[in-house]
Amino acid sequence: MHHLLTTGLTTGSPIKVEVPNTDQRSNDYSEMSLAYRPSHADATYDFKYGVRSVQGGGRSSARETIGRVAAGAVAKKILNQYSGTEIIAYVSQVHKVVLPEDLVDHETLTLDQIENNIVRCPNPEYAEKMIAAIDAVRVRGDSVGGVVTCIVRNVPRGLGSPVFDKLEAELAKAVMSLPATKGFEFGSGFAGTFMTGSEHNDEFYMEGNSRIRTKTNRSGGIQGGISNGEIINMRIGFKPTSTISRKQSTVTRDKHETELIARGRHDPCVVPRAVPMVEAAVALVLVDQLMAQYAQCMLFPINPALQESMELNKQEPVQVPH
Amino acid sequence: MHHLLTTGLTTGSPIKVEVPNTDQRSNDYSEMSLAYRPSHADATYDFKYGVRSVQGGGRSSARETIGRVAAGAVAKKILNQYSGTEIIAYVSQVHKVVLPEDLVDHETLTLDQIENNIVRCPNPEYAEKMIAAIDAVRVRGDSVGGVVTCIVRNVPRGLGSPVFDKLEAELAKAVMSLPATKGFEFGSGFAGTFMTGSEHNDEFYMEGNSRIRTKTNRSGGIQGGISNGEIINMRIGFKPTSTISRKQSTVTRDKHETELIARGRHDPCVVPRAVPMVEAAVALVLVDQLMAQYAQCMLFPINPALQESMELNKQEPVQVPH
Amino acid sequence: MHHLLTTGLTTGSPIKVEVPNTDQRSNDYSEMSLAYRPSHADATYDFKYGVRSVQGGGRSSARETIGRVAAGAVAKKILNQYSGTEIIAYVSQVHKVVLPEDLVDHETLTLDQIENNIVRCPNPEYAEKMIAAIDAVRVRGDSVGGVVTCIVRNVPRGLGSPVFDKLEAELAKAVMSLPATKGFEFGSGFAGTFMTGSEHNDEFYMEGNSRIRTKTNRSGGIQGGISNGEIINMRIGFKPTSTISRKQSTVTRDKHETELIARGRHDPCVVPRAVPMVEAAVALVLVDQLMAQYAQCMLFPINPALQESMELNKQEPVQVPH
Amino acid sequence: MHHLLTTGLTTGSPIKVEVPNTDQRSNDYSEMSLAYRPSHADATYDFKYGVRSVQGGGRSSARETIGRVAAGAVAKKILNQYSGTEIIAYVSQVHKVVLPEDLVDHETLTLDQIENNIVRCPNPEYAEKMIAAIDAVRVRGDSVGGVVTCIVRNVPRGLGSPVFDKLEAELAKAVMSLPATKGFEFGSGFAGTFMTGSEHNDEFYMEGNSRIRTKTNRSGGIQGGISNGEIINMRIGFKPTSTISRKQSTVTRDKHETELIARGRHDPCVVPRAVPMVEAAVALVLVDQLMAQYAQCMLFPINPALQESMELNKQEPVQVPH
Repeated sequence: MHHLLTTGLTTGSPIKVEVPNTDQRSNDYSEMSLAYRPSHADATYDFKYGVRSVQGGGRSSARETIGRVAAGAVAKKILNQYSGTEIIAYVSQVHKVVLPEDLVDHETLTLDQIENNIVRCPNPEYAEKMIAAIDAVRVRGDSVGGVVTCIVRNVPRGLGSPVFDKLEAELAKAVMSLPATKGFEFGSGFAGTFMTGSEHNDEFYMEGNSRIRTKTNRSGGIQGGISNGEIINMRIGFKPTSTISRKQSTVTRDKHETELIARGRHDPCVVPRAVPMVEAAVALVLVDQLMAQYAQCMLFPINPALQESMELNKQEPVQVPH
Repeated sequence: MHHLLTTGLTTGSPIKVEVPNTDQRSNDYSEMSLAYRPSHADATYDFKYGVRSVQGGGRSSARETIGRVAAGAVAKKILNQYSGTEIIAYVSQVHKVVLPEDLVDHETLTLDQIENNIVRCPNPEYAEKMIAAIDAVRVRGDSVGGVVTCIVRNVPRGLGSPVFDKLEAELAKAVMSLPATKGFEFGSGFAGTFMTGSEHNDEFYMEGNSRIRTKTNRSGGIQGGISNGEIINMRIGFKPTSTISRKQSTVTRDKHETELIARGRHDPCVVPRAVPMVEAAVALVLVDQLMAQYAQCMLFPINPALQESMELNKQEPVQVPH
Repeated sequence: MHHLLTTGLTTGSPIKVEVPNTDQRSNDYSEMSLAYRPSHADATYDFKYGVRSVQGGGRSSARETIGRVAAGAVAKKILNQYSGTEIIAYVSQVHKVVLPEDLVDHETLTLDQIENNIVRCPNPEYAEKMIAAIDAVRVRGDSVGGVVTCIVRNVPRGLGSPVFDKLEAELAKAVMSLPATKGFEFGSGFAGTFMTGSEHNDEFYMEGNSRIRTKTNRSGGIQGGISNGEIINMRIGFKPTSTISRKQSTVTRDKHETELIARGRHDPCVVPRAVPMVEAAVALVLVDQLMAQYAQCMLFPINPALQESMELNKQEPVQVPH
Repeated sequence: MHHLLTTGLTTGSPIKVEVPNTDQRSNDYSEMSLAYRPSHADATYDFKYGVRSVQGGGRSSARETIGRVAAGAVAKKILNQYSGTEIIAYVSQVHKVVLPEDLVDHETLTLDQIENNIVRCPNPEYAEKMIAAIDAVRVRGDSVGGVVTCIVRNVPRGLGSPVFDKLEAELAKAVMSLPATKGFEFGSGFAGTFMTGSEHNDEFYMEGNSRIRTKTNRSGGIQGGISNGEIINMRIGFKPTSTISRKQSTVTRDKHETELIARGRHDPCVVPRAVPMVEAAVALVLVDQLMAQYAQCMLFPINPALQESMELNKQEPVQVPH
């Protein structure tokens, strides 16, 4: 049920590329290997390095994220042990199927709800709609994109920094380094730009005598680059898969125009596979920030009443047998 | 007319904070200095470090971006001299006033069009509407946010890298480290998630015999983490200013609930002031990437026909007089 | 008595450079400013950047170390508060005057002993000899170098790392980035290369029931890149000051041979002034390593009996008044 | 004949450790695995991480340098292709056998002279003496250390930087991160501390009309943190191997005193094996600095007459077949 290590691996046999014989030139394999897939990393990798790996995308393949997903599993464990932190991502949009926000309760959302279906959407009804949307393009050799939403519960307060390495900046970099991403927003996001300050601000209140909370969470758990202990939430947009099996105009590496039909097993929608990648990227940022916070501010705390530790779940050190 | 160094400085006298006497406690200055402004960096900075600078936001102030704006001016000059690169940002939304995309031509947009009015919107009619929208909230002591669009013309190809430090990831981090940002998208952005692959892909064609171009630019000038030479475009969402002069519930540093009305000169909309900050952040990323590219791939190019240099405007070295 | 902030500032009026009229060319100021001082950073700075600041050495001046010395003072305070760590450096050689090692007891050496005289040598008799050695060259317009020894007592165990960023590697980089250094050695140093393994190895023993110690300390407190809790000791060689007021052959910036006599107040021996620089460099390395260690290994210690904390002197957090 | 990839690999079967039964405790394997080898990384690794790999030294083994040696081979090739740079190291001391400096000509020294014998000493007579010195301790189960000298010919001028990341600081860190090092010196080194400034300074002269040279090279090719184009030379001290097969006092991991005799194939002298490690470390520093210099100063040189390029040997880009 755990999706930690399912990662973003595509099913994997090398993509076959067919170049239609439109420009009267011979259609041999060496030529096929030179045609650039539109909107793929094929061309830019070659523009940069002057070398090309035509089989399966090379270093640009989403397969490459396996290292981050594996490291993210360790990061999640440390965060959970220290502060009961939970990082949960799910698919909130596939093509034009948008899961309404009020159908998901971020306070109680569980991994089981998400892993309950193949598209990793916590609402079964919308999961069915998403599957249907993917099937619709798959049979036409086309593809779709969508959105992954990620939340973090029980985040230690004080993670991040106030100027260059703001927590939202680190998260943005981490998720925008995943393949096929087109956008990142947190808290109220772009929708928040349509509000006034008095509508948008999160008013503070006291929960009991000791814990400062906010009544709303348009800040998405981060204010001024630093976590405030509320739920962090963010949305990441993924474009439709660029490798499709429909005929497209393109050029070859030696600068001749041609047409191309990509063949082979490729994903008509990468968004469900992106869910563990997003969680891993977020976990790696947070564990780095936790270590920095621990070294910078917990070695000699100046005002422990405010700089409250979150070592809720912190367990005894592992006993090493002699 | 140049907005390079106008920066994001607020007009500047220290913000006065008034705490209404609602909870029967004395309303002296030391108490006022302890009330956190809702959705401001006030509280989280204190949660992290245990210290607080109540006057003007301290290190969290947007004033702090002056260093980036100054360095960005140098970066812009280097980019322009090397490859004729131009970085131009403008306000494309204020509150609910959204500038239609087809009213701006990114191929011909000039700095003069943007600096022609106080909100830095290149369309005079929409500039008037934006000014009116800001005035409407200003008189009520409220605030609004909006969107800055930034484009880059004549970008050298090959900037960025294919895995961790993708160009879009570096840009996202740089702009999300500016104060008040809520989201980042490039190319087709979140709108692109509603398209199919066959609608979204940018087909290649030859411009003359030597230059590989794309017919459309939903990739926003970046494919697989690396620039492809087309115009880079991105949108950055800014929330409404958090410091407003309307009464809000909040808590004090010593954990008492109270109410607060911020007084003093503050911006009812930071978005026009964010324009040079965004340009600077983008320029710093691109000049770093240009230097990396020059060192990594131009010292010994493997395939110069593909790894084309963009030293279009590169001028003779400055002559130092003896 | 504290030499923390006395730093490496030279006494400071701009150095005057006189170019003898040997090659029949006019001896005007612009020409003088172009003559390179032999063995100074003058020439290489110009070779690298193509620009030159003739007055006082520019960025290459030892004055530049003031930032490190100031930051080092903070670093020393943190180290002392955490683990009672003391960093003490002194002059152990000036030109041919070599302080015998057995005249200094590293267990009991105090700052007062060092600051007792102008050359910062803890032995008064040898201090006199060193002063005489400096005076002897000063009157001839010549200069001398020497050696600074630095020790660290009460070092936390476990600082450093086993592969690339070994503690001795970090220390070597930090002190070799001080101006005029020619060599670094720690523990037995180059002298240790003349010993056999059975002579050189530091045998372990138990001090009481809980503390693992070594009988000797040829390791200089560092084994395999990581501190072992014994005293860290190191020696740093400084060359004679390059700016001297004796006639030397040199060339001008425009590549003519000439001769040069440097005038102005310059130090005939920089070694005593290097003492606080060395301490600062060492303190900055150790506080960085302490923070890294705290974050990496103290967040979740696996074997606390071995990974013993050294929070001997760790004091209560500073109380911030409300 | 090329020693590029011979690296520092020890011959390799796991070291066997025998703990004599001196303290009346049972002598089983689990106990043996807990005895720390004196002056080895065994103990400090355990103090830091609380985990231990008794077989062969784990991450602390010199075997680990294979990655650096492999990368260094690529670095050497780039440096040679760009500027004809040659990096050559050799053994200049084994225990008390010191190769006199005047028996090696750094202008003409070749790899063949060094690889001519098993100790990598370019002088056959002294090579024999060194081999005898190693044999003498080997038969007694003891070990010796020594010194590796490394030179770099045809170094581009301008590599390094003037303040923190001085070239000598980078070189010191790189070589001091190799196992068993005790000291680093360059140019005149510690011997230079016994000279006066007038004896030590390297006077400049013109070689032809365009090349600024120094008459002597006590600076070891580096002045003020930046290369001056003369031969870089440095000496690195290596301690005697800590793992010896003679009985030594030590303690176990659970803090009991014991005695230990290490068994297995280990090197009685690591110095000859360190030669390719040193070359690799130096090559990696120099290629990094070359890339930095190319990006920082060659993109827009300010004064090309001084910032002379060293692209002596720079060859045509590799032609990629279509």
